[in-house]
Amino acid sequence: MARQKIQIKKIDNITARQVTFSKRRRGLFKKAYELSTLCDAEIALIVFSATGKLFEYSSTSVKQVVEKRNLLSENLNRLDRPSLELPV
Amino acid sequence: MARQKIQIKKIDNITARQVTFSKRRRGLFKKAYELSTLCDAEIALIVFSATGKLFEYSSTSVKQVVEKRNLLSENLNRLDRPSLELPV
Repeated sequence: MARQKIQIKKIDNITARQVTFSKRRRGLFKKAYELSTLCDAEIALIVFSATGKLFEYSSTSVKQVVEKRNLLSENLNRLDRPSLELPV
Repeated sequence: MARQKIQIKKIDNITARQVTFSKRRRGLFKKAYELSTLCDAEIALIVFSATGKLFEYSSTSVKQVVEKRNLLSENLNRLDRPSLELPV
């Protein structure tokens, strides 16, 4: 039996939304860890729940990745490059 | 036919690692977008490839999420809380 596709829009039911948040957050952190390990990537992931609770993951440290990112962004701006490569 | 499980360790073959990086990065960004939309979460995701290329996603702006996170971290440190909740 195939799983049903769900629509990607905000879940109205608060309880269902919190359950989905817990499950998918866990999945997202796992995928981030796997990507960093398999492909030697450096990752920082920051998640705030709808209630403002903070969850974070980094393959090294969030601070370090953010600083590296800011440095690169500044350089790119200085070189007048239109934008970073933004997937999705 | 079930998919084979893979071992989570660095992929030795460079080409295979790059292919896996592209595919899994795409998947990770998609999952981050879905989590933010479904559950009204605020997310920043920063990924550096092994070659130092930057990819990023945010439901709002990376800068905004990072600043919110830094503010909260500072407050937590000031209150002498041992650590944030770190899933995985």
